[in-house]
Amino acid sequence: MKKPSKLGIGVIGTGRIGKLHIQHLSQNIPDADLITICSLDTETAESLAVQFNIPKIMTDYNSLLTDSNINGVIVASSTDTHVEICQAAAQAGKHIFCEKPIALDLEQIDEILAIVEKAGVKFQVGFNRRFDVNFMRVRDAVASGEIGEPHIMRITSRDPAPPPIEYVKVSGGMFLDMTIHDFDMARYLIGDEVVEIFAVGGVCVDPKIGEVGDIDTALITLRFQNGVLATIDNSREAVYGYDQRVEVFGSKGMVTADNPMTDTVTFSRSEGSRSAPLPDFFVERYKDAYLTELQAFVRCIQEETQPLVTGADGRVPIVMGYAALKSLRENRPVKMSEIS
Amino acid sequence: MKKPSKLGIGVIGTGRIGKLHIQHLSQNIPDADLITICSLDTETAESLAVQFNIPKIMTDYNSLLTDSNINGVIVASSTDTHVEICQAAAQAGKHIFCEKPIALDLEQIDEILAIVEKAGVKFQVGFNRRFDVNFMRVRDAVASGEIGEPHIMRITSRDPAPPPIEYVKVSGGMFLDMTIHDFDMARYLIGDEVVEIFAVGGVCVDPKIGEVGDIDTALITLRFQNGVLATIDNSREAVYGYDQRVEVFGSKGMVTADNPMTDTVTFSRSEGSRSAPLPDFFVERYKDAYLTELQAFVRCIQEETQPLVTGADGRVPIVMGYAALKSLRENRPVKMSEIS
Amino acid sequence: MKKPSKLGIGVIGTGRIGKLHIQHLSQNIPDADLITICSLDTETAESLAVQFNIPKIMTDYNSLLTDSNINGVIVASSTDTHVEICQAAAQAGKHIFCEKPIALDLEQIDEILAIVEKAGVKFQVGFNRRFDVNFMRVRDAVASGEIGEPHIMRITSRDPAPPPIEYVKVSGGMFLDMTIHDFDMARYLIGDEVVEIFAVGGVCVDPKIGEVGDIDTALITLRFQNGVLATIDNSREAVYGYDQRVEVFGSKGMVTADNPMTDTVTFSRSEGSRSAPLPDFFVERYKDAYLTELQAFVRCIQEETQPLVTGADGRVPIVMGYAALKSLRENRPVKMSEIS
Amino acid sequence: MKKPSKLGIGVIGTGRIGKLHIQHLSQNIPDADLITICSLDTETAESLAVQFNIPKIMTDYNSLLTDSNINGVIVASSTDTHVEICQAAAQAGKHIFCEKPIALDLEQIDEILAIVEKAGVKFQVGFNRRFDVNFMRVRDAVASGEIGEPHIMRITSRDPAPPPIEYVKVSGGMFLDMTIHDFDMARYLIGDEVVEIFAVGGVCVDPKIGEVGDIDTALITLRFQNGVLATIDNSREAVYGYDQRVEVFGSKGMVTADNPMTDTVTFSRSEGSRSAPLPDFFVERYKDAYLTELQAFVRCIQEETQPLVTGADGRVPIVMGYAALKSLRENRPVKMSEIS
Repeated sequence: MKKPSKLGIGVIGTGRIGKLHIQHLSQNIPDADLITICSLDTETAESLAVQFNIPKIMTDYNSLLTDSNINGVIVASSTDTHVEICQAAAQAGKHIFCEKPIALDLEQIDEILAIVEKAGVKFQVGFNRRFDVNFMRVRDAVASGEIGEPHIMRITSRDPAPPPIEYVKVSGGMFLDMTIHDFDMARYLIGDEVVEIFAVGGVCVDPKIGEVGDIDTALITLRFQNGVLATIDNSREAVYGYDQRVEVFGSKGMVTADNPMTDTVTFSRSEGSRSAPLPDFFVERYKDAYLTELQAFVRCIQEETQPLVTGADGRVPIVMGYAALKSLRENRPVKMSEIS
Repeated sequence: MKKPSKLGIGVIGTGRIGKLHIQHLSQNIPDADLITICSLDTETAESLAVQFNIPKIMTDYNSLLTDSNINGVIVASSTDTHVEICQAAAQAGKHIFCEKPIALDLEQIDEILAIVEKAGVKFQVGFNRRFDVNFMRVRDAVASGEIGEPHIMRITSRDPAPPPIEYVKVSGGMFLDMTIHDFDMARYLIGDEVVEIFAVGGVCVDPKIGEVGDIDTALITLRFQNGVLATIDNSREAVYGYDQRVEVFGSKGMVTADNPMTDTVTFSRSEGSRSAPLPDFFVERYKDAYLTELQAFVRCIQEETQPLVTGADGRVPIVMGYAALKSLRENRPVKMSEIS
Repeated sequence: MKKPSKLGIGVIGTGRIGKLHIQHLSQNIPDADLITICSLDTETAESLAVQFNIPKIMTDYNSLLTDSNINGVIVASSTDTHVEICQAAAQAGKHIFCEKPIALDLEQIDEILAIVEKAGVKFQVGFNRRFDVNFMRVRDAVASGEIGEPHIMRITSRDPAPPPIEYVKVSGGMFLDMTIHDFDMARYLIGDEVVEIFAVGGVCVDPKIGEVGDIDTALITLRFQNGVLATIDNSREAVYGYDQRVEVFGSKGMVTADNPMTDTVTFSRSEGSRSAPLPDFFVERYKDAYLTELQAFVRCIQEETQPLVTGADGRVPIVMGYAALKSLRENRPVKMSEIS
Repeated sequence: MKKPSKLGIGVIGTGRIGKLHIQHLSQNIPDADLITICSLDTETAESLAVQFNIPKIMTDYNSLLTDSNINGVIVASSTDTHVEICQAAAQAGKHIFCEKPIALDLEQIDEILAIVEKAGVKFQVGFNRRFDVNFMRVRDAVASGEIGEPHIMRITSRDPAPPPIEYVKVSGGMFLDMTIHDFDMARYLIGDEVVEIFAVGGVCVDPKIGEVGDIDTALITLRFQNGVLATIDNSREAVYGYDQRVEVFGSKGMVTADNPMTDTVTFSRSEGSRSAPLPDFFVERYKDAYLTELQAFVRCIQEETQPLVTGADGRVPIVMGYAALKSLRENRPVKMSEIS
């Protein structure tokens, strides 16, 4: 008893996010048929295939792209492979879900976006936080005018622990690796474009991060076209857990999304009251959002609608990252128009 | 690529809870192989089979019990069928997960428990709330002595809306249909037995409930063997949603489990601050708990351990329900020993 | 520059509550002129007179009652002196604010109430919690129908530490000493009379309390005339502080008053999140309420209105206390009408 | 019965803050003897004198300064009078509590501070928020190392409604009138000096504010000498009330002070859960802090210690205000050293 109209999907990459997508596609998205996993790490791929009952595994993504049963691909391989895979996939007529960042080079991004447009395939970028139920409600409150005209926005985004120094070296720097999510969130929540960015930052968490030319702590000011003033604060290490909050303040009120806690239990003892800790990290915090973004990808193919996160949405935060970097280096506000 | 050692499972019943078990078994429990759905409602069964890729559907549970690929059965049919199905399943050597209540007749329960014991099969009763992460943490806090000796417990359990009057008529009354969960929770959290019960109740929500001889509002006092005093309050209609809270107070502190909210969003406007509503009802509220209880069932078969909710755990709350009913009718505290 | 129409007030008793009244009258109630302190503890009285600039101190309350500048007296001496002082004060035409309990003997209370009525003086009883801003809002929500018809009420009232055993011996027992406040709160919040009481209790905190014939832990069920079911839980020792909460659940919603915290500071560290402790005890918790009740007393004299807590309000909780005690001893629900 | 060693105090100014100080000095600070009120508004002064039993009122502050019973003066008159009054008071040997801002002119401030130092009198500036119990606990947590090395600080400070436009015109601008409190709070909480400021701002609330050359919405970035990065956000109009929150994030955790609510009551209804509103404005929000700061002033005179808010503490936030203004106008980060 097999459902006829399922979408054939292939996943490229079996890292942390790739695994999560594989799990969601095979267990929780009845309209998707996960046919193939493609990975250079054959051991992991085999083990996932057994665990989730996936028919094929392969190491060369080109074989996957010639499979006519495949309608869409999930590009979850390392960032430096996105360009060639996306180009090949678009040319093979496959719809594409591409993890963030599309690429670190703006010219390459433009190339991909052009090819995708010409091929007429769907292209959705993996800004999973847009699909978090809390942030969606904040966006709704702003879009519907429930808080009036937005004036001030605050985004707090702090990781529980810094990544390995080897990763930091090739990450493109904190703004392009970590803040990129917050840049996207800023645009998403306000529904408008940023015109100028001012960034301050420093090395507070680990001097090694400084030694490889990066920062681990930052405070970024955004000025939107519509006058909204926003601040993002980032740290690579919040010892109390993965801290992800937003607040939008407007003429008719304020809407905030606080951290979801891991339970609702409170202990009251003589030394005070203690409540649950924060989620450990993004897989735990955004599990549902990762599922919802894939469901949205499947649906936009089925219903032939525009993806909820477009290629342009994937490009702008990269530009914002370069503007922030320039601002940090030159210690002055940098206009978005300064980054080509 | 199929995992060898999966447990073959059959589900009997495709009502609200049956459907949930079917979804969990087919999507989220890799160690289970949901082979057969058995239901008199063939339309629903067929649709579920297609949706979740289930090989067989049938209407007669006896055929299911003769299938040697089936290791365990989930009995989620209506309460009045539990007795014969559980007996047949035990005699067929199948492990049994039986929804609550096992039966409303204590003699029948004793019969089932005897047969199950003789057959040497696992028998787990569907008290799903024991697997809620919040209540598990409360239980841990009590069991570990973190709050010292427990003195007072409060359980609030209110449904969002009363069931249809036709259901009320055959439900066995609020104590056996609804409070039964709270009776189980009380025993679970304290880890001790109740010796005396005093119940007051009334018809506040809907006079029709009174007309069929039931109540819709109750306040129950429990006295435990170890001296703990507990109160349960129930209503069939909390207009603000499904309200499920517990509090245990002891010599070294207090532990509470509050309701999980549907999001973490707060609106601050001139008229005050507004936060998220409660979950609608039990499927939403206890989704994870329903999954965890099935995982525990599968694991107790695999690891040949005692189920976490035993047949005795399924029986005692029924006795408590009868004691509460007697107390309500006679307006006096009733000892558990008064109910045979 | 002295305000002409100030009310002359005398305070009798300089214990913990007496001192608080003295401070409030001399500092925060411009319409009151605290003329005299009367106390057998002359040292304390003298020190208070200096601190708060009070003209006269005396040891014999009769001298106070003959002072024509005195319009009203605050009776904050020990319970066993209330009867004779209130009688003498009423006969001297002084308005009376009497601390709770008026007396432990119902006949004596009736006598006082008769004398007071005959003398035509105001008589307000010191149920301070009615003047707590949080509980007032809960009362308003119930009275205004904001939560519809009330169905269930829960009152939690736990002291931080038991009183000295010498005090316990003469206190009249937990129901008359401690629960009396909750009995009053129950009547106040629902605005109706209790018809039946069932109480269970035990000695969990300190065996010495049991040795002198009292209990330290209790759970009390109240049934109101209008059908509301209520539960009060009490403990003499909550190690986390003075715990005072109420909840009223009705056909259109629920209203709760939680504990006010001592500050709004939260610490998030790797071991979890920690917030402020509860207030230490009643002076800290109900400071504002103690002031508001005295302001109400002064105002009811000035405006010649009925006191907000009448003599009858002072009597009924005593009856409730005796009913609870009888219920505890006889292990059965006791009707209010059983206590004469 | 008069206490001998009381400090004689005179209050100059009977505006909103002056009245509050008068009330606190006459009612809640036993060690202070409020002898004289000095105000050009004789009607208000007379009414206050009657209400609070104050012996003398006058219109000329020079008479007050020649009264040998006066030990200290509270300067709560309009900002443009602070210079001459403080100078005269210092020369008369009176200890001075001066409302913020000392003056808008840095040279004048320096003059006052020089005279005060020469005269050897105490000089405390009215940064009341330092005495708020919540912020004091945050300061303690930072100072004690409880959150490790501080990395990021966020201050939210929003008024419930903009002041009259006539006031805005003479206020010195939002940074010197409103943000000045947050500049002080920033220095207080971190215990270090700011080296660079970047400010963005706009007119979102009322175009009239823009017409007189001011802003009503701002976001300010502070860089501290010790590397802490801080952000302040301000609005002249938060429709939901007076919003005053701080958060300090460090290497070992985070400490936050949330808004105190006006009550602890929550309503749960079908449309969601609603809790208490924020305090209206600063008098309600900081009532206790205003009292504590005056107690500290009295104590620093009695105990001959350094005031907790010094003249230098009064000067630096003015410099920060000018730096922010320069940053706003020139759209670049401005070093504190650029403001002489």
